[in-house]
Amino acid sequence: MTMNRQVRLAARPVGLPTRANWSFTEEAVPQPGEGELLVKVSHISLDPAMRGWMNEGRSYIRPVAIGEVMRAGGAGRVVQSKHPAFREGDEVAGNFSVQEYAISDGKGVRKVDTRRVPITTYLGTLGMPGMTAYFGLLDIGKPLPGETVVVSGAAGAVGAAVGQIAKIKGCRAVGIAGGAQKCAYLTGTLGLDAAIDYKGGDVKDGLKRACPDGIHVFFDNVGGETLEAALARLAMRARIVICGAISQYNSTAGVKGPANYMSLLVNRASMTGMVVFDYADRYAEAGAEMAKWIAEGRLAAKEDVVAGGIDAFPETLLKLFKGENFGKLVLAV
Amino acid sequence: MTMNRQVRLAARPVGLPTRANWSFTEEAVPQPGEGELLVKVSHISLDPAMRGWMNEGRSYIRPVAIGEVMRAGGAGRVVQSKHPAFREGDEVAGNFSVQEYAISDGKGVRKVDTRRVPITTYLGTLGMPGMTAYFGLLDIGKPLPGETVVVSGAAGAVGAAVGQIAKIKGCRAVGIAGGAQKCAYLTGTLGLDAAIDYKGGDVKDGLKRACPDGIHVFFDNVGGETLEAALARLAMRARIVICGAISQYNSTAGVKGPANYMSLLVNRASMTGMVVFDYADRYAEAGAEMAKWIAEGRLAAKEDVVAGGIDAFPETLLKLFKGENFGKLVLAV
Repeated sequence: MTMNRQVRLAARPVGLPTRANWSFTEEAVPQPGEGELLVKVSHISLDPAMRGWMNEGRSYIRPVAIGEVMRAGGAGRVVQSKHPAFREGDEVAGNFSVQEYAISDGKGVRKVDTRRVPITTYLGTLGMPGMTAYFGLLDIGKPLPGETVVVSGAAGAVGAAVGQIAKIKGCRAVGIAGGAQKCAYLTGTLGLDAAIDYKGGDVKDGLKRACPDGIHVFFDNVGGETLEAALARLAMRARIVICGAISQYNSTAGVKGPANYMSLLVNRASMTGMVVFDYADRYAEAGAEMAKWIAEGRLAAKEDVVAGGIDAFPETLLKLFKGENFGKLVLAV
Repeated sequence: MTMNRQVRLAARPVGLPTRANWSFTEEAVPQPGEGELLVKVSHISLDPAMRGWMNEGRSYIRPVAIGEVMRAGGAGRVVQSKHPAFREGDEVAGNFSVQEYAISDGKGVRKVDTRRVPITTYLGTLGMPGMTAYFGLLDIGKPLPGETVVVSGAAGAVGAAVGQIAKIKGCRAVGIAGGAQKCAYLTGTLGLDAAIDYKGGDVKDGLKRACPDGIHVFFDNVGGETLEAALARLAMRARIVICGAISQYNSTAGVKGPANYMSLLVNRASMTGMVVFDYADRYAEAGAEMAKWIAEGRLAAKEDVVAGGIDAFPETLLKLFKGENFGKLVLAV
């Protein structure tokens, strides 16, 4: 009998999650019922948002329950199907949770084409992070050609796509990331106009140098002091897209709100929150356009694939919060 | 020789302004040159924004310089005119500063009709505060009939207009103000649906009771904990209009940013700053509509006129920051 190993939420974390917040369980691989398919998961997507799902309380999605298999995106191969739209051998991406095998009714599952891009790209640039970048930047940020777009977490899965889409749309693009290597990647491989190393100097000073005309669109994945630095450098009628606040997710001292939010008034600017799920109807449209950009060599996708399987999940997840991942963080099962 | 008494900014305040921040000077009343008019000021408008103008640093308007006569709106009568558009005896409103006589080139000065409303209303509901309410609520907040509009500083000059315009537009209107008397005024005279006394209980609890369907538009004049309480109660796709943050203007501990700003993400909401001067082209349109509402008895205007003249300026201004004014605060010269 083949076993399915799973990672379940054992306790809600205070601060950074530790191994004690997880439990490891095993059960027989279930059989798909009528209308279902069984997926052997090959890759699990690790995303900053997962930290939020571990908390109690009202949010944009219900919290993962104690004892529940941890929610996660993933990719793999159909090994058995009683679903009319899927066949054994299909490569798929979907919400498969942190486990080795997943039963699905096909909802939210899509077949992926790995002839031109690796399957992991469907967890990154051609997955939720890419969709988040695309709709957050274009639908909320609404950048015009020639405007300056600044993105925090710029070497991450969402940020790298934001910076490159900004360039494709004719904007000046500036990325904020941690470390010289990531910054060189931003201005080198990704072709951004400037990169600011938050570990190597003051972000405020960096923005002053890199954005002489101010920031027209700020796409924020980080929050905290980074958000304040951007608020201090807004151009008139700037748009801030609130996508995440990774610097604050594990804070035990409470979230730091932006003390200089009145810059929104001084600059007649706006700050708007976005959740990618609202754009589900348009994923196909965005995916097609981004796949075209990838094929044309205009959009680079980089995944940081960590080996180690399910057992390595707790420590691998922490790389996100320590800024140790370089590209979309993926756990190979 | 008639003398013109003036109040000048002597030093930039830390925290609440004191008498030491002002100097009192006298000079001969100047003669208007060609294209100028001389106004005898009868009323000076005292507004929360004046606190911001006393600070150094970049803002939406240049700071008042040390030694300069303090900037203020005002109303009065033309006593001499070499300007083609104004005649001796005209009643006018404009930026006349904190002084007894003002020379003007006519820019930003408008003739007012005091046959139906007192001249002080042109400093309140038919002046900048009214314009701020009108454009902030309708252009930024964009409330739809049936939506819930919440306004802080609801018994103040801007807030009272916001609440009433919300009602005129078919919204449910909820005001936050300090003290039972002000709250009774909101639900009684002004016809708001509910009032929350921030001095008499928890604003968060009050909003929960008064806004069972959440807040669709929050018009904020106050900031701090009031803004946080509203963020905690947003409806999906809510709009926050950032007009002021009077609770923070005199803070010596630094401004408190809204710690729960990620509610913008959870609720796909936005927070947008506004400055009334941007709408100068449309003041006449708004003024005409609001004058009609006043004439129809649908929009009540209340001014808190304090006697005492120029000498009483420093202490009278402080009433704003202590929440002691009841209606638009005006100093009678």
